[in-house]
Amino acid sequence: MRYDFGSDNTAGMAPAALDALVSANSGFARAYGSDDVTARAADEIRRRLDADAEVRFVFSGTAANAIALSMLAFPHESVLAHHAAHVCTDETGAPGFFGQGLGLTGLPGFSGKIDARALAAVLDEPEVGHRQPPAALSLTQSTEYGTVYTVDELRHLIEPVKARGFGVHLDGARLANAAAAGFDLTQIARLGVDVLVFGGAKAGGLCTEALVMFDKSLARRVDNRLKQAGQTASKTRFLAAPLLGLLESGAWEGGAAHANQMAQALATGIATQTPFVLAHPVEANAVFVRMPIKAHEALTAAGWACYRFDDGSVRFVCSWATTQDAVDELLEAMSKLR
Amino acid sequence: MRYDFGSDNTAGMAPAALDALVSANSGFARAYGSDDVTARAADEIRRRLDADAEVRFVFSGTAANAIALSMLAFPHESVLAHHAAHVCTDETGAPGFFGQGLGLTGLPGFSGKIDARALAAVLDEPEVGHRQPPAALSLTQSTEYGTVYTVDELRHLIEPVKARGFGVHLDGARLANAAAAGFDLTQIARLGVDVLVFGGAKAGGLCTEALVMFDKSLARRVDNRLKQAGQTASKTRFLAAPLLGLLESGAWEGGAAHANQMAQALATGIATQTPFVLAHPVEANAVFVRMPIKAHEALTAAGWACYRFDDGSVRFVCSWATTQDAVDELLEAMSKLR
Amino acid sequence: MRYDFGSDNTAGMAPAALDALVSANSGFARAYGSDDVTARAADEIRRRLDADAEVRFVFSGTAANAIALSMLAFPHESVLAHHAAHVCTDETGAPGFFGQGLGLTGLPGFSGKIDARALAAVLDEPEVGHRQPPAALSLTQSTEYGTVYTVDELRHLIEPVKARGFGVHLDGARLANAAAAGFDLTQIARLGVDVLVFGGAKAGGLCTEALVMFDKSLARRVDNRLKQAGQTASKTRFLAAPLLGLLESGAWEGGAAHANQMAQALATGIATQTPFVLAHPVEANAVFVRMPIKAHEALTAAGWACYRFDDGSVRFVCSWATTQDAVDELLEAMSKLR
Amino acid sequence: MRYDFGSDNTAGMAPAALDALVSANSGFARAYGSDDVTARAADEIRRRLDADAEVRFVFSGTAANAIALSMLAFPHESVLAHHAAHVCTDETGAPGFFGQGLGLTGLPGFSGKIDARALAAVLDEPEVGHRQPPAALSLTQSTEYGTVYTVDELRHLIEPVKARGFGVHLDGARLANAAAAGFDLTQIARLGVDVLVFGGAKAGGLCTEALVMFDKSLARRVDNRLKQAGQTASKTRFLAAPLLGLLESGAWEGGAAHANQMAQALATGIATQTPFVLAHPVEANAVFVRMPIKAHEALTAAGWACYRFDDGSVRFVCSWATTQDAVDELLEAMSKLR
Repeated sequence: MRYDFGSDNTAGMAPAALDALVSANSGFARAYGSDDVTARAADEIRRRLDADAEVRFVFSGTAANAIALSMLAFPHESVLAHHAAHVCTDETGAPGFFGQGLGLTGLPGFSGKIDARALAAVLDEPEVGHRQPPAALSLTQSTEYGTVYTVDELRHLIEPVKARGFGVHLDGARLANAAAAGFDLTQIARLGVDVLVFGGAKAGGLCTEALVMFDKSLARRVDNRLKQAGQTASKTRFLAAPLLGLLESGAWEGGAAHANQMAQALATGIATQTPFVLAHPVEANAVFVRMPIKAHEALTAAGWACYRFDDGSVRFVCSWATTQDAVDELLEAMSKLR
Repeated sequence: MRYDFGSDNTAGMAPAALDALVSANSGFARAYGSDDVTARAADEIRRRLDADAEVRFVFSGTAANAIALSMLAFPHESVLAHHAAHVCTDETGAPGFFGQGLGLTGLPGFSGKIDARALAAVLDEPEVGHRQPPAALSLTQSTEYGTVYTVDELRHLIEPVKARGFGVHLDGARLANAAAAGFDLTQIARLGVDVLVFGGAKAGGLCTEALVMFDKSLARRVDNRLKQAGQTASKTRFLAAPLLGLLESGAWEGGAAHANQMAQALATGIATQTPFVLAHPVEANAVFVRMPIKAHEALTAAGWACYRFDDGSVRFVCSWATTQDAVDELLEAMSKLR
Repeated sequence: MRYDFGSDNTAGMAPAALDALVSANSGFARAYGSDDVTARAADEIRRRLDADAEVRFVFSGTAANAIALSMLAFPHESVLAHHAAHVCTDETGAPGFFGQGLGLTGLPGFSGKIDARALAAVLDEPEVGHRQPPAALSLTQSTEYGTVYTVDELRHLIEPVKARGFGVHLDGARLANAAAAGFDLTQIARLGVDVLVFGGAKAGGLCTEALVMFDKSLARRVDNRLKQAGQTASKTRFLAAPLLGLLESGAWEGGAAHANQMAQALATGIATQTPFVLAHPVEANAVFVRMPIKAHEALTAAGWACYRFDDGSVRFVCSWATTQDAVDELLEAMSKLR
Repeated sequence: MRYDFGSDNTAGMAPAALDALVSANSGFARAYGSDDVTARAADEIRRRLDADAEVRFVFSGTAANAIALSMLAFPHESVLAHHAAHVCTDETGAPGFFGQGLGLTGLPGFSGKIDARALAAVLDEPEVGHRQPPAALSLTQSTEYGTVYTVDELRHLIEPVKARGFGVHLDGARLANAAAAGFDLTQIARLGVDVLVFGGAKAGGLCTEALVMFDKSLARRVDNRLKQAGQTASKTRFLAAPLLGLLESGAWEGGAAHANQMAQALATGIATQTPFVLAHPVEANAVFVRMPIKAHEALTAAGWACYRFDDGSVRFVCSWATTQDAVDELLEAMSKLR
C-alpha cells in the first residue's frame, strides 16, 4: 500500500527535525523541567507569531486541542466549531473526556469554513438551563477541507465571540500550510485568539504540537494540568527538539510550501487529466475529489491509500515528503478510472 | 548543574533506541495504524513476558498508569497502592483525572513494599456506601524506594486480591532494573497481573511506555480509549521504535544491569567513604541516603541535582548512562560533607 | 401565567403521593439505608414490571438517565438515541458529565420514534479508532413527541442492538402514560432492556425517579455509585414514599390515564375548533401543534405557558391535574388565534 | 433498632418543614424555574447571613459540597480540609467525581478543627508540577466532631488562604447547631467565605441544602451547572419549601437549640452516670464517647444504633426530634455497660 497521499502524517520526520532530535540526545538534562531546547523552541514560536505567549509542548494534537478547549469552557458549557472540524469528528470525543462532558456544537459552512450567519444565529439564541450555552469558538486553519481563512474572515467570526466574552481556540495542526498559503501568522494574537495549537506533526515533526497561550491567565498551573493529563514528558527536550529543528532551519515553512505546491500540481492534474472534479478549493495541502465509490475502490485496490470523508469526497494530502513523481503516478492511476 | 543522579530519565536515549528511531523514520507509513515496527516491539515484549497479551504504546508513564487504573476501577471505587507509589505521590492526581474521581488508598510498608498485613486489613474492612471500596491493587516493581519484590512477596499480595475478584496493576517503569536484579519477568502473567506498564523511558527509550493487557477483555476498544485520552500517535512507529531498538539489541536489560551495578558501587562507596547511611536496601538502580538538610543543600550547591523524598532521605538514581567516573566524583563530593 | 399545559411537572404531587410522604415522616429511620417504605416501593415496581430487578430511587430524571447511560457505555463509546430525546436535548449534557465524555449519537425518526433503518445503518458502520463506537441504545417511552412505541417496534430496535452485545436503556419519565395508552409494562424486561428509568415526577410524585436494573451486574456497588454522584438521600424514605403512594393507590396509572384522556380532548378540540393542525399523533399526554410564531406569541401573551420545540411545533402537556375546564379555556383561547 | 441517636438525619421533617411542603403543593408552578417559594427561601437565607449572595437549592449535601469545591479548584488542584471532614471521609469521593480528579489534602487538628500551623505549613510548601497544589480551603461548622469554631479561629484559617487568592468553602450541614451554640452567621461573608452550604436536612428539612455563593462570579451559569449535575428539580418549589418553613417559623434555630441542649444533657449524663468519658468537647449536637468495642457492641445489641468513628470514639447525635426521655433511656442503657 502506498501512503504518500493518505495523510500528512504518513511521512516521517523531516531531516531538520530528526537532526535536532539526535543532537538533543547528548548528555544529561533535567527531567520534567525547562531545558535550553524547549526554551529556544518556544522563542521561535513566539517570534513567528510576533506575540508574547506561554508555550508548552504536548504529545499529540488531540490532547492539545482537548486541553485547550477545557481551558475555555466548563463541562456545562459548549464550544462552537465547524461540524467537520477535527475536534468534532476525529478525536473520539476527547474534548468531552478532558472537559468532563463539555459540549461541542457543530456549525455549518462551505468547505470547512464556519458560516458567519450560522455563528451569529447560535450566538443570538437565548440561554436556557437545560442546554449547554456556548463559551468558546474553535477554529481550524487551514481547515479540515483544505481551505484557508483570510484574516478578514477570521475577524468576522472572532469579533462577535469576543464581544460576548467568550474564548477562541485555533487548531493549527496545518498552520504551516496556511502560512505557506499566505496567511499572516502575526495576526493570530491580534485577532484575539486565546489558545493556539501550533502544529508540528504534520509539518514534519514527531507527534508533538505546541500549546500557545496568548491569554496568560490560562497558563496558570498549566504544568500541573499537563502532568495530570499525561502530557508531560520526563525527557522534555525530545518533545521540543524536532519542532525546534524545523523552525530554526525554516523547514517548517519550506516543507509546507512544498506540500501546498504538490497539492496544486495534483489538483491541476485531476482537473485536466482525470474524469473527476474537485470538491473544494485547493488552498493548502489537501485535495478533495468527487469520485464514484467504485472508482475509489479501484484506486485503493491499485494500492493508493486515500479516505472518503463525511461530505462524500475522497481526500488526498500532500506533505513535505510528497514527490512530483508520486503525484504523476497517482494522476496516471486516477486517469484510468471512471 | 549535574543531573547524572537526579533521575533515571535525565539521560537521553541509549544508542540502540536512537538508532531504531532514526531507522524507523524512512518512507511513508500508515498513520494511527499498526505498522511493522509496532508489531515487532509488541512481539519482543510478549517474548520477554512469555505470555500472550495485547500491547499498546503510550506517550508517558503517567498516562499509562492512569489509564490502566481506570480499566480496573470505577470512579466510585478505589485502588490500593503503597502510599509512596508514583501513582499516589508524583502524578498530579492523574488516576483521579483519567478515572473521574477514582480513589487511591495508600498502604504502608517498609522501603516501598506494601505490607501484606496492612493489605489484608484493608481488604477485610466491611464495605460501606459512603466510602470508595477497593477494586484493584497497584504494585510497583522495582519499587519507588529502590527495592525489588520477590515473586513470593508478590504472590502474597496478589492472591488475596484476586480471590476477591479485584484487578492487579503493575507499574514497571523500572521493570528492566528489577529484571536485571533477578526478578523473573515470566512470572508476571502467572501471578495474575492484569495490566502491566512495561517501562521504556527509564530504560533508555524515548518517553514511551508499553501498556500490556494480559486480561484481553480490558483491551476491548482500547484504541478508542487511547485516542480519546490523547495517547494515540499519528506517527505510531515512533512510539514503538526506541523500545524495539532496546529490546532487539538487549540494551533494555544491559543498560539496567549497568545502572544497578553503578548503584551498588555508589551504595558501597557511601557506606565506606562518607559519613552517611543508606535509608533503604539498594536492590535496583536507586540509592536513598539519610543526610542532614545542610549536607543536602551543600551537595546541591556543589552542583549535584538530587531530591529529598517524603521519607526524608535523599535519592540518587543511576541509569544506563551513569559512568564510574561520575560515581567517583559524587562520592568524593559527598565525602567532604557532614 | 397559567402553567397547566407548560409541562407535566408543573403540577404538584398527586394526593396519594403527598399523603404517603406525610405518613412516611413519623418517627426515626435509619439514614442512608434501606427502610420499609423504600423496600415496598421497589416491590411495587417489580410487580408492575413482572420482573426481578435491583431498584434504587434517585432525585432527578436527569441524574437517573445519565447514571444509567454511564453504566452502559465507557467514555470512549457512545449511546444511540433519538436526536430529540431528552438525554440529547434537555439535560445540559449530563450524560457526558456523568459519563466523562461519553458520546451521544442522534438518530432520526418520525415523531420521536427511532427509525429502524437509521439504527441499522449506524450499527453497520465499521468501527474506527477516531470515533466513539456505539455501546448502547437509549429509548424513550412514551416518546418526546408524545407517541408510544408498540412492543413490536421496540423489539425491532432492541434485537439488533442486543445481538451485538450492546446495552439498552429506557427512559420512562412518562412510562405511566405509555402504560395508560396500552403499553404492556411486563414486556420491558422480556424485550431485553437493561436499565429502566421508572418515572415518578411526571406521574404525580416528587422529583424522584426509580433506577431499575434488570441486569443485576450493573447494580454492583450501585450504592457507592449513587452516593458519589450526589444521588443518595440521607432521609431515604422520602425519596420512595411519594412513588409508593402512587403505586399502592393505583394513582400512578389513574393519573396517567386521566392525563392521556385530557390530551385526547385537547387534540380533538384543536382539530375541530381551531385553525391549527396537530404535528404528531397524540398517543399519550402531549399534544404538539403547528402554529405560526405570531399565534404562539399571542397565546403566551394571553397567559398560557407553552413551548416551541426543535421541530417547530408548540407543545401542550396534560397531567394528572389537568382539568376539562382548563382544556376548554385553552381551546377557546386558541380558537381566537390565527 | 432505635435510631434516635444514630444521626441527625434519622429524624423526619420537622412540622414546620412538612407544613410548608404540603402548602407548596397546591396548584401549578413553572417547572425548572424560579417560583415564589424558592425566592422567599433564598431571601430568608440572605437575611440570616446579612449578605448578598446567589442561592440555589440542591438535593443533597454531598452534591452541594462537591459542586462547591468544583467551583473553587480545577482537577489539577487540591482542596485543603480536615482529614476527618465529611468531604474527605463520607462522600465516596464525590469531590473527585464532580471535580474530575480534584484532590483533597487532609489536614490534622484536634476535635475536627484544622490546626492553623498545619495549614500554614502546607501553604508554605513550594509548588511542584507533579503534585496538586492547593486552590481552596474547606471548613466545616459545626465540625465533624461536634465542636464549633470561634470567629477568630476561622479568621486565622481563612486569612492566609485568601491572601494567596485561594477560595474558601464552608460546609454548613450543621450550621444551625453552630448558630444555636452562639456562632454569628453574619460573619461568614465578612470572613471571606466564597461558597457556603447552608444545611437543611439535619435541621429538620427534607434532604435539601442551599448552595450560597457570596462570590457571585461563581454563580455564572450555575443553573446549567446544576442541571448537568442532576441537581435541578423539575418541581423546584419542593426543594425550597421545607427550608422556607423552617426559616420563616424560626424552627431552623429552635430545633438546633433543642438538639444542642439534648446533647448537653446526654454529655452530662455520660460524665456522671456512666463509666465512659467524652472524646471531644460537646459544643453542638454531637456527643463522642470513648467506649470499649465490647461496650459498643452491647449497646448496639441492646437496640441503640450508634457508629464508631475513625478516631475510635462512638458518636451519638441529637436532633430537633430527640426527646429527654430518649436521652434518659440511652443513659440508663449506657450506665449498665462497662
